[in-house]
Amino acid sequence: MNNEYLNKAINEARIGMNNQDGGPFGAVIIKDGKIIGAGHNQVLARNDPTAHAEVMAIRDACSNLKTHDLSGAIIYSTSEPCPMCLSAIIWSNIKEVYFGTNRIQVGKIGFRDDKIYEYFENNKKDLLKVQEIKSKECEDLLKDYDNKLY
Amino acid sequence: MNNEYLNKAINEARIGMNNQDGGPFGAVIIKDGKIIGAGHNQVLARNDPTAHAEVMAIRDACSNLKTHDLSGAIIYSTSEPCPMCLSAIIWSNIKEVYFGTNRIQVGKIGFRDDKIYEYFENNKKDLLKVQEIKSKECEDLLKDYDNKLY
Repeated sequence: MNNEYLNKAINEARIGMNNQDGGPFGAVIIKDGKIIGAGHNQVLARNDPTAHAEVMAIRDACSNLKTHDLSGAIIYSTSEPCPMCLSAIIWSNIKEVYFGTNRIQVGKIGFRDDKIYEYFENNKKDLLKVQEIKSKECEDLLKDYDNKLY
Repeated sequence: MNNEYLNKAINEARIGMNNQDGGPFGAVIIKDGKIIGAGHNQVLARNDPTAHAEVMAIRDACSNLKTHDLSGAIIYSTSEPCPMCLSAIIWSNIKEVYFGTNRIQVGKIGFRDDKIYEYFENNKKDLLKVQEIKSKECEDLLKDYDNKLY
């Protein structure tokens, strides 16, 4: 845990708030003691519901390092990553996450992070309808990819 | 359920495979009977671990409609959305999801969707270390946002 990194994430969040880019959230990514990426919530500024602070920081770090693989990096976020961001962190191969305020605290100012956690953790499937379709063509996509037939 | 939409998603996946943009996945978003967005996995092409088919389709639809809110839209994906994509779908206010192959099937060709579902659903927290930091400055971000002090 390093307060300097958390302060950088807080600065990012303040930049976003001042610009009215979206929610009050910032994140930074560190590798080998150096900040390799930073971001803040830009859902409103970019018309992009996926533009959370952690996702923006991951995109920034990956763009800077020209890779989709952030193995060995760690992330600091001003708030607990939502399940979208936490999954993005896992896909990026980051293995260490530090955050300030938690899902309950952001829930109190109107954000739905806690509800999305409940969807997964407590199997509360009322947020949306998800239906599987049997499709040979979709199975063929996986087979052709696995067999390098493309 | 509409096979025409699933076929469009399959076409998207084929485009991505032919370009070697990333995994064999495609998605389309429909509102009022019209396709408003489409996308395929571009993790490799864009050096972006968040560039899954559903996320790309959401960004495309939001860009086309100039909004971060896709209320009333539905999404078709060639594969079951991973927790990142499913959370992105929830944030975008889409309420209906149709998919072809499932997490077990994509797991068999090496993708980690099933492991990330297990992380949330079965509380298997071995994929990463997540630590909360008590921070008044992070709490102030939420308060200032809630009180419009920015």
